[in-house]
Amino acid sequence: MAGAGGVTVTAVPAPPDDPFLRACRGLGADRVPVWFMRQAGRSLPEYRRLRGEGSILDAIRTPDLATEITLQPVRRYGVDAAILFSDIVVPLRAIGIEVDVAPGVGPVVAEPFREASDLARLRPLDPEADTPYVLSTVRALVAELGDVPLIGFAGAPFTVASYLVEGRPSRTYAATKALMHGDPDLWARLVDRLADLALASLRSQVEAGASAVQLFDSWAGALSPPDYERFALPASAKVLAGMADLGVPRIHFGVGTGELLTLMRDAGADVVGVDWRVPLDQARRRLGDDVALQGNLDPTVVFAPWEVVAEQANDVLRRNAGHPGHVFNLGHGVLPDTDPAVLERVVDLVHAHAHTPVA
Amino acid sequence: MAGAGGVTVTAVPAPPDDPFLRACRGLGADRVPVWFMRQAGRSLPEYRRLRGEGSILDAIRTPDLATEITLQPVRRYGVDAAILFSDIVVPLRAIGIEVDVAPGVGPVVAEPFREASDLARLRPLDPEADTPYVLSTVRALVAELGDVPLIGFAGAPFTVASYLVEGRPSRTYAATKALMHGDPDLWARLVDRLADLALASLRSQVEAGASAVQLFDSWAGALSPPDYERFALPASAKVLAGMADLGVPRIHFGVGTGELLTLMRDAGADVVGVDWRVPLDQARRRLGDDVALQGNLDPTVVFAPWEVVAEQANDVLRRNAGHPGHVFNLGHGVLPDTDPAVLERVVDLVHAHAHTPVA
Repeated sequence: MAGAGGVTVTAVPAPPDDPFLRACRGLGADRVPVWFMRQAGRSLPEYRRLRGEGSILDAIRTPDLATEITLQPVRRYGVDAAILFSDIVVPLRAIGIEVDVAPGVGPVVAEPFREASDLARLRPLDPEADTPYVLSTVRALVAELGDVPLIGFAGAPFTVASYLVEGRPSRTYAATKALMHGDPDLWARLVDRLADLALASLRSQVEAGASAVQLFDSWAGALSPPDYERFALPASAKVLAGMADLGVPRIHFGVGTGELLTLMRDAGADVVGVDWRVPLDQARRRLGDDVALQGNLDPTVVFAPWEVVAEQANDVLRRNAGHPGHVFNLGHGVLPDTDPAVLERVVDLVHAHAHTPVA
Repeated sequence: MAGAGGVTVTAVPAPPDDPFLRACRGLGADRVPVWFMRQAGRSLPEYRRLRGEGSILDAIRTPDLATEITLQPVRRYGVDAAILFSDIVVPLRAIGIEVDVAPGVGPVVAEPFREASDLARLRPLDPEADTPYVLSTVRALVAELGDVPLIGFAGAPFTVASYLVEGRPSRTYAATKALMHGDPDLWARLVDRLADLALASLRSQVEAGASAVQLFDSWAGALSPPDYERFALPASAKVLAGMADLGVPRIHFGVGTGELLTLMRDAGADVVGVDWRVPLDQARRRLGDDVALQGNLDPTVVFAPWEVVAEQANDVLRRNAGHPGHVFNLGHGVLPDTDPAVLERVVDLVHAHAHTPVA
């Protein structure tokens, strides 16, 4: 079958009884599936050995390396999904925006987005030509992963725009908000282009074999609900709606989004990612039963004694109250100082948990 | 009358028709009162002229300077309350903890709190002996301010503990959470001492003439509700309950606390501070009618054109829906780059707003 861009779809559908994909669809399975945001990366000694110095973007552009890094946590933890080793700025860099991921800082953009003329720098993404290494990595992973589904991902337009406008990570998003409020038309054109970029990237990942996607709107929680609805939701909805025909679960995640959960669902999510601030039973009350939840162990709790980690992980499972649509995860990414042995035990704990009901 | 510590109370009660105090008590007034967190400070050119270089803690220890800095925004904006120019680490520094406020960074503690033996460094605060400059500033301010009430403040035990344990501002609070989960008994003793410190400081400020207090638990929003309830609430409740006999309004504020609002009320607040993420009507639904709200204009909105600022400020007023218990404020502190002229217009807009009903 031909994808939207005329690209041949090589996806091997994951088996219908796959616990991760079943949970994403609210179907339940013989166990609660679990994976961890940033499961690949600096917390793993095998990653640090492999990576050495150098930009993460160089590693992403090297399919053998990116494939191996993606596989490392699957082997070590036995998680129920792999997530592509990549970064939300990869499409930007691929179309010529000078951006790097500075160690200990995050994405730094050489020339921040300032005015209408900057739109010209945001040309459309041609995934086969611009990010062939991503597609090679996805194809290699699908071949290696067997029954384990691969999650592709992209940054949501608001969060990517915040890096483009601020030029670097921000605590206040003052420049971003000044632009959206001060020139709403330009803002709309900016996030619309970023939506096209995210959509092209996600479609290409799925067409190359990814079984699910996650749209990371990591910093959407900086917005009030009315501002989110006006300035972030439409572009994210365009991305998520543009994925509908591919039939893969769409996970939608941000941090500090307690007030935004229903809007993030309404943007077109099959699975809403919840950070640790909102107990899952509370999230379920706000969202109703027709969506799956992903989360939400506090990523810092791994530094506590095991009894505490176990208690909190069990609390997450208990608050889900047996709803079949639950993917266990942390409430945000794995912190670099995390002891992988603790996450191994979390996976075992989740897998040993009484089965969710099968719908 | 003699205060708890045998200190003579010199407070001149604010006039009973004071709009700020009436709103704090849910009584309504002839206008909606307004003040701004961090209204004194770097956003004001008169502040920058006065301060020059040097540590903020030195300025705080100089009553003439601290008094003038506190008065500057009252003169410029005509706000309905002054807030003491101070810092939440002042009591720590006064009992001998080596802490400074690094420009552009925040509080930095030379020897972070690590173990039980560190408790010995946290001796009780004797406000007259340890912070005479604070009391001199408060007394000078009460004489200068006339009818304008002065808000005293302290850092809540959790937030102060987070600086003590991390040693500097943190994005994850990993060390703080590791301590609270790993050694709950030591954590309880730590925050209990910090509660005593905050309480002694607040009582002395009120006894010297402050008409209200705000307990800043700025980073409590990093905690899940169960963790907040177990590890932060008891010590904050001790502080707030310890103020009850003084009869001044107690404001309780933190950032990202949408899930914690009812717990922060239950800790003993007369006024709950709400950041911009939670629309006031939503906060009111969660909290009921028997508490006043403070907030909650996004502090970054001041960088937008005036029409947008006005629209958002009116939206805050509209969402309060005429409840008499509303103190207008930003959702967090004034950002350093803020144009004071915009805040002047916000004050005028709020004061021109149709009167709140008088209970």
